[in-house]
Amino acid sequence: MSLHTSSTSAVLAGARSASLSETDRLDASTDRSGYVSQSLPDGVVFAETTDDVVSTLRLATAHRTPIVTRGAGTGLAAGASARSGEVVLDVSRMNKILRIDPVEQLAVVEPGALNADLNAAVGEYGLFYAPDPASTSICSIGGNVATNAGGMRCAKYGVTRDAVLSLNVVLADGRQLRTGRETMKGVSGYDLNALIVGSEGTLGVVTEATLRLRPLPVATATVAAFFPDFATAAQAASAVIASRIQPSMLELIDGQTLEAIDMAMGTTYRSQGGAFLLAQTDGYGAHLEQDVLIEAIRPLATSIEKANDDEHAAELVTARREAIPCLEKLGRVSIGDIGVPRGRLAEVAVGLNDISERTGVRIYSVVHASDGNLHPMLVLNPEDSVTEGPAKVALGEMFYLAKSLGGTLTGEHGIGLLKRDWLLPELGEVSLDVMRSIKDAIDPHGLLNPGKAI
Amino acid sequence: MSLHTSSTSAVLAGARSASLSETDRLDASTDRSGYVSQSLPDGVVFAETTDDVVSTLRLATAHRTPIVTRGAGTGLAAGASARSGEVVLDVSRMNKILRIDPVEQLAVVEPGALNADLNAAVGEYGLFYAPDPASTSICSIGGNVATNAGGMRCAKYGVTRDAVLSLNVVLADGRQLRTGRETMKGVSGYDLNALIVGSEGTLGVVTEATLRLRPLPVATATVAAFFPDFATAAQAASAVIASRIQPSMLELIDGQTLEAIDMAMGTTYRSQGGAFLLAQTDGYGAHLEQDVLIEAIRPLATSIEKANDDEHAAELVTARREAIPCLEKLGRVSIGDIGVPRGRLAEVAVGLNDISERTGVRIYSVVHASDGNLHPMLVLNPEDSVTEGPAKVALGEMFYLAKSLGGTLTGEHGIGLLKRDWLLPELGEVSLDVMRSIKDAIDPHGLLNPGKAI
Ligand SMILES: Cc1cc2nc3c(=O)[nH]c(=O)nc-3n(C[C@H](O)[C@H](O)[C@H](O)COP(=O)(O)OP(=O)(O)OC[C@H]3O[C@@H](n4cnc5c(N)ncnc54)[C@H](O)[C@@H]3O)c2cc1C
Ligand SMILES: Cc1cc2nc3c(=O)[nH]c(=O)nc-3n(C[C@H](O)[C@H](O)[C@H](O)COP(=O)(O)OP(=O)(O)OC[C@H]3O[C@@H](n4cnc5c(N)ncnc54)[C@H](O)[C@@H]3O)c2cc1C
Repeated sequence: MSLHTSSTSAVLAGARSASLSETDRLDASTDRSGYVSQSLPDGVVFAETTDDVVSTLRLATAHRTPIVTRGAGTGLAAGASARSGEVVLDVSRMNKILRIDPVEQLAVVEPGALNADLNAAVGEYGLFYAPDPASTSICSIGGNVATNAGGMRCAKYGVTRDAVLSLNVVLADGRQLRTGRETMKGVSGYDLNALIVGSEGTLGVVTEATLRLRPLPVATATVAAFFPDFATAAQAASAVIASRIQPSMLELIDGQTLEAIDMAMGTTYRSQGGAFLLAQTDGYGAHLEQDVLIEAIRPLATSIEKANDDEHAAELVTARREAIPCLEKLGRVSIGDIGVPRGRLAEVAVGLNDISERTGVRIYSVVHASDGNLHPMLVLNPEDSVTEGPAKVALGEMFYLAKSLGGTLTGEHGIGLLKRDWLLPELGEVSLDVMRSIKDAIDPHGLLNPGKAI
Repeated sequence: MSLHTSSTSAVLAGARSASLSETDRLDASTDRSGYVSQSLPDGVVFAETTDDVVSTLRLATAHRTPIVTRGAGTGLAAGASARSGEVVLDVSRMNKILRIDPVEQLAVVEPGALNADLNAAVGEYGLFYAPDPASTSICSIGGNVATNAGGMRCAKYGVTRDAVLSLNVVLADGRQLRTGRETMKGVSGYDLNALIVGSEGTLGVVTEATLRLRPLPVATATVAAFFPDFATAAQAASAVIASRIQPSMLELIDGQTLEAIDMAMGTTYRSQGGAFLLAQTDGYGAHLEQDVLIEAIRPLATSIEKANDDEHAAELVTARREAIPCLEKLGRVSIGDIGVPRGRLAEVAVGLNDISERTGVRIYSVVHASDGNLHPMLVLNPEDSVTEGPAKVALGEMFYLAKSLGGTLTGEHGIGLLKRDWLLPELGEVSLDVMRSIKDAIDPHGLLNPGKAI
């Protein structure tokens, strides 16, 4: 312990800008997962340049100091949560958009740039950056890269991994690694891009990202449909997939979550049905695809409405985006993130009901239906823990439910500290062993985000 | 050497089915790259099941025997070329399509299944497997996975990496690794899927692949356009990208290649222009996108023709697909595979002319224009080598040309033995060092495809 403390002091003392204040350390001990750290990190380094990151990591290697990289702290897996004996490396001040190339349709950004700020900047060129977590206005690109963030558009346009062309990564020993390339295609050597994306800060610190942009669609068509219940809406979502169109958004919200949204936002969604499906199609075929979509869900829906103007469509999307903050008004929220084969959403609905009844935990669900990724949200009393008691039991049962349906523990939020217990049953010995050998090869002293992700 | 020989004998003797015949060893010493091995491998093991692969690799580890995995042998980088002291593990007999799930839109296949056979099988369900190398009817899915194969549709639908959901991989020591998952999304642990894809048989042997399928597009619209020369056609391709549509195919063929196609196939393309652009759009917006495309290229084209029936469209696609075999009738062909930013294709055209003049090597080009991936093909005399003399010089200059334009050595064919000399200048020390440390971690005795890829 005292060894650690002296090692962290050396790293903190060597930084151009660092804080030992309790407020900063408290902030850096947690994220938006509901996870509460038992201790505070020893201090926070604020990096402003790649050189700052390099010099902090060189010191960290010299002194064997554990480093927790932090973006905007909106993570839902306690990936950025730091503890005593650790130094937090906060890169949120490195937030410049360095270059936008409208011809090649790419952007180069610093890691602290917010997802929404990037989209605002490239929007001026008629382009967009596809991965759009609901947290778009508060999360950083570096965090998106480190968690392989998804969102509502990704069934059609891909997740963060599909949008990353190249990264600059500072390794634990301070060396700089350039992954990928600026061209659309390339196969020289192993895919280190994909290895870093989703590695949750355990392999290196991302200090620059070259990202693929896309032309804004010429048209977007929005449908809002209501169903008697979650299971029927899930069936409708499966019918959309089976109809062979590719919606750009297919979001399902259950009745209880609609109630919470109504309560927080003054809307009246719940009165219109027991579950809600928000579907968008886009591009040159947007309206033709919309017709097919409507035919597919018609037999199951109690009401179907086209949002014919942009304002109405934006309202609906905002309601979906705000689901988590609305639920946070009801209590401490712990957010599940399971993925299942797309045809089995209705079965998950039944299973989640069951889990709620058995554990006594209230479960609210929003679902990225076109890729089978569900966010069952546990709403707890403010004093309840997310890492023990009924919440922990419910999270575990959710995982085994997903597993029994051929699914996964986490579709887009990551493992962090929160989900480590289920990583071995998910991945198996060999897979985890290979991952650990890669970690050892790249970060031999185990300094980067120890205990997280794998 | 004698040590090697005795170690290879043990592996060959332990296999259920193996061959020591000179014909089989000769076949296994080469691929379609034009690379000629100086020696023959010691023998070929024919695997029929995953267990066969496991037992061969266990023996290989016990006896420290180098193993070269072989699919269909259509590679263009000498990745499957094997030499004395090595045993070839041929998986082409493991060619079953194990499962097609039309609801989840996925297929599970053995590695030896041919790309075209998979597409024929899933076509019956109205689905397709997107990565479509021109070699579709002769290359294996395992080879596609190992090289991260691309093709003509991949600008819109992604390369092999984007289509792989999960793999079963036998590691050098015989352990079985399951990568990825069957769900559309998932972020638990590092992305071992992407690490294995494109690793050219150096990290493990793929014995099963779970692949994402897509609904066949409801409509496809084809345009054939001619231009005065390659540079003008390249400009037209850039104009298509700038017009913000997403063609599903945008293939450019230069005048000399048209001549070779005409000669081999009895067609008359060359008389219609000095360069040819084959463009397809598909989906619900196919015809609207086609109109935009035509407007974009009109100012540059000497003629533009819509292929209004499927037969005519298929003819055009076949001409493109057959370009390599047609050139092979003219001499030994060595195929470049450089990638550049999409807006710089016209500059490459100029640079390639230059290289041809300086080295005296005839260079023919076909281009996946929508992702900036060019295949400049060197046509040599049958007795010329692809690994020394003018061909080697020309390949090297092509790489430095691509590099000077911000591009890459290889867009989709891989490094193999053929392109190793340029890997360090492309990737840099740190990147190569990280890749080698991963290789050491996963294949500590360096038994799998030694000397290839990295
Ligand atoms: C209301 C709300 C809605 C959300 N909706 C979604 C959603 O739809 N989809 C989705 O995927 N997520 C969603 N999230 C989760 C979260 O926003 C994402 O995980 C996001 O990518 C985290 O970014 P961050 O900058 O906040 O990262 P942090 O929370 O700061 O860090 C997350 C992880 O990334 C690592 N990290 C951060 N920056 C770097 C870097 N530069 N280099 C290396 N490692 C780094 C950290 O160590 C940590 O492990 C939501 C969160 C909230 C609060
Ligand atoms: C006429 C022609 C056109 C072509 N067009 C294209 C094109 O458009 N796009 C494109 O990308 N390529 C193209 N190619 C190249 C080639 O077809 C691809 O690289 C293909 O993916 C190779 O598959 P294969 O089964 O023949 O592999 P092989 O040549 O047998 O092997 C290629 C590499 O993969 C490894 N490997 C093979 N199977 C396995 C396995 N099961 N597990 C682990 N490693 C394995 C080998 O060790 C080797 O390194 C073309 C080739 C020809 C001859």
